[in-house]
Amino acid sequence: MTPEEFRIAGHQLVDWIANFRSTLEERPVMTTMGPGSIRALLPPSPPSEPVSMQTMLDELDRVVVPGMTHVQHPGFLGFFPSNATLSSVLGDLASSGLGGLGISWQSCPSLTEVEEVVCDWMRQLVGLSDAWKGTIHDTASTATLVALLCARERATGFTARTGGLQSSPTALVIYASDQAHSSIPKAALLAGYGAHNLRIVSTRGPAYAMTADALDDAMRADIDAGRTPAAVVIAVGATATTAIDPVAELTAAARSHGAWVHVDAALAGSAMLLPECRWMWEGVEGADSLTWNPHKWMGTVLDTSLFYVRDTEELVSVLATDPSYLKSSVDGQVTQYRDWGVSLGRRFRSLKLWFQLGLDGVESIQTRLRRDMANAQWLAATVADTPNWQVLTPVPLQTVCVRHVPTSLAHDADALDAHTLAWAEAVNRAGLTYITASKLDGRWMVRLSVGAEGTERHHLERAWASIRQYAEHA
Amino acid sequence: MTPEEFRIAGHQLVDWIANFRSTLEERPVMTTMGPGSIRALLPPSPPSEPVSMQTMLDELDRVVVPGMTHVQHPGFLGFFPSNATLSSVLGDLASSGLGGLGISWQSCPSLTEVEEVVCDWMRQLVGLSDAWKGTIHDTASTATLVALLCARERATGFTARTGGLQSSPTALVIYASDQAHSSIPKAALLAGYGAHNLRIVSTRGPAYAMTADALDDAMRADIDAGRTPAAVVIAVGATATTAIDPVAELTAAARSHGAWVHVDAALAGSAMLLPECRWMWEGVEGADSLTWNPHKWMGTVLDTSLFYVRDTEELVSVLATDPSYLKSSVDGQVTQYRDWGVSLGRRFRSLKLWFQLGLDGVESIQTRLRRDMANAQWLAATVADTPNWQVLTPVPLQTVCVRHVPTSLAHDADALDAHTLAWAEAVNRAGLTYITASKLDGRWMVRLSVGAEGTERHHLERAWASIRQYAEHA
Repeated sequence: MTPEEFRIAGHQLVDWIANFRSTLEERPVMTTMGPGSIRALLPPSPPSEPVSMQTMLDELDRVVVPGMTHVQHPGFLGFFPSNATLSSVLGDLASSGLGGLGISWQSCPSLTEVEEVVCDWMRQLVGLSDAWKGTIHDTASTATLVALLCARERATGFTARTGGLQSSPTALVIYASDQAHSSIPKAALLAGYGAHNLRIVSTRGPAYAMTADALDDAMRADIDAGRTPAAVVIAVGATATTAIDPVAELTAAARSHGAWVHVDAALAGSAMLLPECRWMWEGVEGADSLTWNPHKWMGTVLDTSLFYVRDTEELVSVLATDPSYLKSSVDGQVTQYRDWGVSLGRRFRSLKLWFQLGLDGVESIQTRLRRDMANAQWLAATVADTPNWQVLTPVPLQTVCVRHVPTSLAHDADALDAHTLAWAEAVNRAGLTYITASKLDGRWMVRLSVGAEGTERHHLERAWASIRQYAEHA
Repeated sequence: MTPEEFRIAGHQLVDWIANFRSTLEERPVMTTMGPGSIRALLPPSPPSEPVSMQTMLDELDRVVVPGMTHVQHPGFLGFFPSNATLSSVLGDLASSGLGGLGISWQSCPSLTEVEEVVCDWMRQLVGLSDAWKGTIHDTASTATLVALLCARERATGFTARTGGLQSSPTALVIYASDQAHSSIPKAALLAGYGAHNLRIVSTRGPAYAMTADALDDAMRADIDAGRTPAAVVIAVGATATTAIDPVAELTAAARSHGAWVHVDAALAGSAMLLPECRWMWEGVEGADSLTWNPHKWMGTVLDTSLFYVRDTEELVSVLATDPSYLKSSVDGQVTQYRDWGVSLGRRFRSLKLWFQLGLDGVESIQTRLRRDMANAQWLAATVADTPNWQVLTPVPLQTVCVRHVPTSLAHDADALDAHTLAWAEAVNRAGLTYITASKLDGRWMVRLSVGAEGTERHHLERAWASIRQYAEHA
């Protein structure tokens, strides 16, 4: 495709996207397509003849859009917000259009240096000290893996890098709360710790936070049994409930046993753009690493996960390799981001953040986040005021955990579980809103996660009406 | 940014990209910006007020473009080709514009099912059997890490997942040739094997391929010492020299000792679109996993790395976690790609491949690859015919490894190294072409890696003239 053909086709696609976004509200939030039905719309063999741009756009309408659950829809209350703001979409297009290759500083110096600057801007915007240096990973899963790899090396006195984890004389242990995200067990498995060396520290309501006492007890028990605490992952805004672990106390406990401290603020990091929310990670300066995902609530299109560390030398010593074909005369004077993460080749991801900050401005993002927090408070109050409805956990951020408890099911937990799953499914099938069921203390509940970019109060009123309809008349 | 604002700004950006691409040839290939000089162009604090799209485009011109080494430039002969075809750029824009979220089948069914179909189209296009199932990772680094994680579990009888690699009674060993890519040592380190358990099998000229005898000897020595061969990584088109390991023989040797076989065809996979090239990976059906990067020569914009396995159950058993908030009623009937890789959240990457195949057509891609291979042969012949110039290795693909050996330096290897690095740097600074120095048998050489989308014969003639000028008059 030549640049002139791109100019024409690109205009067509931009118009298509603008139309798609402006008519999103007319669509059901959740797809009605069943397993295999999208695959069946496509030919089994690859296309042999080129087609026009209009044909590709028709294919998006025919195959792709009907098979999407629309997380950009104002009625979306599922998982966590995963906003793809159109300003950041433009930054991503700039990245692709420029076609830069990030494998070393020299392969695209502006890719490296703009990333350094933008990560520092983001650091300032959430009130972190300048001891933190940042990079952009694809997701928090990768960031957490990197953190646990660093922890592994530190806990073995940097001998795992040479002898392998198999040479460790003791078992290395990872600690996180029972509210922690699945990426933490996954990272522990991938880093080779093993499931038996992952301590899931129990929490209790109402706040579902890990306590320093419980963490300390777990660490002491392992030490007494000859095992080595390697890392503690602290959740600021855990996935199911947005539970907030007390960062300062947990960090002190972790440090006293020499463990790496990683703070997972994947969702809540965006809230730190608001000074009034920063109490939630008080003590964060004592951690070793932290991650937050602008691709969630803040709305920098996926995949944009910020990862900050305080000791970049330690990080690089774990992740660096040094092949001759990547050597250049400026090595030592520059940042080589390949040595900060897993992948060698990197996209120019900082443009997504820069375009969003530049085109939308920080204030408009802050205003939207405050709108969502106020809406979540309104929703929580509304639910709590409705007979037979319960708000199960505090609402420090934008997620409201609810259960509908008909009087007839109040003493039958299994039947209540079935009821919860049934109405959640019915609500999703109705298409006005999309919600996610999750477990709390082993029983099903529903998360109403406010924060899609387009969600205004009237969308929540409509969603709540739909939820009541299907739950109360199930 | 509203959809209507996006429509206007998007058209501006599309025009800017079309202009950038069509004037690329007028720019120096390598940036002239030194370390820190791009960072110095940006304010130390984040922007406080929103700016116009024109201001952002001006920033691209002022800050970003001058700091790029232009891998899309027709004079680019560095590293490996890293083409960002404009058709695939549109596919990536569609992905961002749609704003889908891949964390489960249900979160965006079309993201999963289109990826299944497109990976199968790509499989057919390179002549693999339907025993292979594919997914898209960001880079081959991640794909190789996943392969070595699978190998780790298989070699421990799937006990590392529970007890941790630290519980392995024996050391697990990884094998690759001395021409293998840096992502292999890196993956071995990250997976916890340790540098001492990575066997770099020596190769020799002229072909620099790993022999089955050498591999077998290395494996037997480890077994005799009580260690366990875990995986062999076979290079089809190694990075420095495009060396081609004999897949069938090496696979047989690896299998006889129970090791996982991973084929790294990151560059050469694109050549498999040409039936006449498929001899290069004959025997690949005996491997366990393989990776190739359409984001290299084929030109699907970064990051598009295909990863295929034969046993998806084994893969999923290594990588799956199963949190309640990701459960849905269709689990078991669908593919959950989160269990095929490291990251949970995934972009709609298959659209990049689909748009490229659809808009450009396979034939035009094949024609371009054949052009590049013919150009590389022309370049190799031209170099070999020039006094004091040497072509150092065979040219099965598109990379020509060369050295300029002035008579005065023929017997002084250190001085020759200095000469090689000096002229390579001078050529790059001149800006007509960009080349990468690399080591072969411990001595510096220069790689001329043909394959940028726009590179025609006359660009190579001009590049070769510039190379001769700076090398012969250094």
